[in-house]
Amino acid sequence: MSFGTTFAAWRDSTPAWPAYTRHAFVQGLGDGTLPHAAFLHYLTQDYVFLIHFSRAWALAITKADTVEEMRLAAGTVNGLINDEIDLHIQTCAAAGIDEATLFATQERQENLAYTRYVLDAGHSGDLLDLLAALAPCVMGYGEIGAHLAAAKTSDTYHDWIDTYASDDYQQLCRDVGALMDGAVARRIGEGATTSPRWSSLQARFAMATQLEVGFWDMGLDP
Amino acid sequence: MSFGTTFAAWRDSTPAWPAYTRHAFVQGLGDGTLPHAAFLHYLTQDYVFLIHFSRAWALAITKADTVEEMRLAAGTVNGLINDEIDLHIQTCAAAGIDEATLFATQERQENLAYTRYVLDAGHSGDLLDLLAALAPCVMGYGEIGAHLAAAKTSDTYHDWIDTYASDDYQQLCRDVGALMDGAVARRIGEGATTSPRWSSLQARFAMATQLEVGFWDMGLDP
Amino acid sequence: MSFGTTFAAWRDSTPAWPAYTRHAFVQGLGDGTLPHAAFLHYLTQDYVFLIHFSRAWALAITKADTVEEMRLAAGTVNGLINDEIDLHIQTCAAAGIDEATLFATQERQENLAYTRYVLDAGHSGDLLDLLAALAPCVMGYGEIGAHLAAAKTSDTYHDWIDTYASDDYQQLCRDVGALMDGAVARRIGEGATTSPRWSSLQARFAMATQLEVGFWDMGLDP
Amino acid sequence: MSFGTTFAAWRDSTPAWPAYTRHAFVQGLGDGTLPHAAFLHYLTQDYVFLIHFSRAWALAITKADTVEEMRLAAGTVNGLINDEIDLHIQTCAAAGIDEATLFATQERQENLAYTRYVLDAGHSGDLLDLLAALAPCVMGYGEIGAHLAAAKTSDTYHDWIDTYASDDYQQLCRDVGALMDGAVARRIGEGATTSPRWSSLQARFAMATQLEVGFWDMGLDP
Repeated sequence: MSFGTTFAAWRDSTPAWPAYTRHAFVQGLGDGTLPHAAFLHYLTQDYVFLIHFSRAWALAITKADTVEEMRLAAGTVNGLINDEIDLHIQTCAAAGIDEATLFATQERQENLAYTRYVLDAGHSGDLLDLLAALAPCVMGYGEIGAHLAAAKTSDTYHDWIDTYASDDYQQLCRDVGALMDGAVARRIGEGATTSPRWSSLQARFAMATQLEVGFWDMGLDP
Repeated sequence: MSFGTTFAAWRDSTPAWPAYTRHAFVQGLGDGTLPHAAFLHYLTQDYVFLIHFSRAWALAITKADTVEEMRLAAGTVNGLINDEIDLHIQTCAAAGIDEATLFATQERQENLAYTRYVLDAGHSGDLLDLLAALAPCVMGYGEIGAHLAAAKTSDTYHDWIDTYASDDYQQLCRDVGALMDGAVARRIGEGATTSPRWSSLQARFAMATQLEVGFWDMGLDP
Repeated sequence: MSFGTTFAAWRDSTPAWPAYTRHAFVQGLGDGTLPHAAFLHYLTQDYVFLIHFSRAWALAITKADTVEEMRLAAGTVNGLINDEIDLHIQTCAAAGIDEATLFATQERQENLAYTRYVLDAGHSGDLLDLLAALAPCVMGYGEIGAHLAAAKTSDTYHDWIDTYASDDYQQLCRDVGALMDGAVARRIGEGATTSPRWSSLQARFAMATQLEVGFWDMGLDP
Repeated sequence: MSFGTTFAAWRDSTPAWPAYTRHAFVQGLGDGTLPHAAFLHYLTQDYVFLIHFSRAWALAITKADTVEEMRLAAGTVNGLINDEIDLHIQTCAAAGIDEATLFATQERQENLAYTRYVLDAGHSGDLLDLLAALAPCVMGYGEIGAHLAAAKTSDTYHDWIDTYASDDYQQLCRDVGALMDGAVARRIGEGATTSPRWSSLQARFAMATQLEVGFWDMGLDP
């Protein structure tokens, strides 16, 4: 499992990364102890999250420098809006929550803070600033899915785990990793890690990671 | 052929509409008199146009108020980036122009003025302002395609004509028309045509139509 | 004290308004019981808030439709960046906190959620959407300042109170109120309150008010 | 006269620079041969230009990384909206053209192409991309003003020349030059001129310069 060298470097410099990917919420998905009410609460918030996260990926299309960057971002937007959101709709429908209810979900502050931070990263900076804020969610879920698929001791949440452990999702993470490596090469070039931008990008990645921790905390607090 | 009531109202109030949809360039596509050099010049400029037009549709995703609006905009972005642009790449490749050359095309001012105007319509306003600037291209090509499919006297440019006369493209125009009607209903509501916004939206539509005329003029001037 | 009819209508439909303008933090400013540590904590967070709030007012300039709208927004941006922020710098400097420390303040989630929500209101919508999200802070502080100037029982925080009770600040609130009334007239027109946009604008105003409550809560929790 | 090392490097690599700063329109301002009708036509278009150019400077505030960057950009926005635009209003008023007429000026395509290109540079990139597109106008007028003040053979257009030759305007150019040098240092750092971004920034500067040439061309064609 390799999601590129840029991602690996930023992740390894982010102290809060394990607090995110090994959060109690994640443990509860793996051993089945997560209360169903918390899971549904998380799914409804995550539905709203995905809407704004899709908006942020759409913003990436507007900030791309090459057609390849545009194609990958466009594919990701479509995957989010037409596949990943649908999974939420179906799972929630099975639990008696229809899409109109999902859409009307009162957005929690932890949720709002995260997606609007990502969108602002894009509006205030360039594509790299935006990717640095998008990466923790995309790749973190990839790591969590792969980890839980191997480590889970319960099948209660296997649909969720399978989604993010799937070949499709793991490939998406690799594609986004390649997009990030390419964007770094095109915009910073050699010596990227000693460029003054590196620390500001790293700080964006770390802030988004912290906001992921807050999102899991919220998930445990319906 | 109906692309919705909003489009019809704006089109019918735009004096330059026939100058755009019945332009000499269009006539030349229909009767085969358009010089091939002009067609290739147009295609290379239109390749660059589509890149920025796709960015504008991606911006629409970030400005949508409902998931349905997002879905249609996301589908349009994908269609543009993965289908319509590909047609240009293939046609140009057949004429010996590769994609790197296309991407490096020096953007003509008439081209630049148009797409950046559309993007700014989106950034300065809301989704309706953006749709008013996007509509003339989308629907105008739908009208032109349908017209030429019926009226053409030459098969020289039948690939181009077939693209925009196709069921797929005509359906896209109907979908965008429905999106516009829905967006007007949601944001302005009853009495939309007497709202102060109506004239500013109408003015945006008219400006984009004028910029389409300029684009055809440029097409005839390689 | 009248900040226009639009503001009054939105405020009077927002149940959380008193929770914001009569918050325990506000009471503590008036009777001097607010701990100084909480006040300094609030000031450092508010310094970061003002930076992003200024960015949102700058965004308003990019979304204005008239030169008058631009002039008022430009004046507000300048007032924020060169006057209101300076007050924070001087007050904090007197307490031994220099501007570099202020700028390096770790932004609290309640703070980040608020300003990025306001910026996104502007990016996703038009000027009215942005003004609806900007208004609770501007006018709420105007109401709080005027209220505390009359009701305060302690002079401990009189500098802060004087700032927002001042003629200059009260005039700013009236100017912004007039800007909002004009923007509603220009963009929605007659029957604005029954337009479908009214409820979405009202909802933005209510969300920003709720985020103000969260900001005061954070202020009491250094 | 030094407007910083970044500006000097970009200018010296831009073949079209003399075509812009020594344009026939400029010569006509200096020797008084520019027809008054062309000058008024230019002023009315430039009024519309300044509105959108101010919007672009306001966008810079939203993309700044430091308070110093914000302060300079905010000062520039205010100077543009409250001083430079006023000069146009007064000069045009003296010629019988009121501000409502100015504001209603039909924007020429050369004008629209330029300002929307600058705005898009900001929206698609970061502050450096925006500054590279803003610089040719700001500093070019500084060079032109200083040149004409020394070389003019007629006083016909001395008000215009004095504006851009003034200490205030020359200082603005130095300040923007310092802003650019600082932004390059903060975002690219050592070896900036060999960074892959340098050529893309240089290309933006060159495109904006080309659009300035087009603007003068338009000025000669009322």
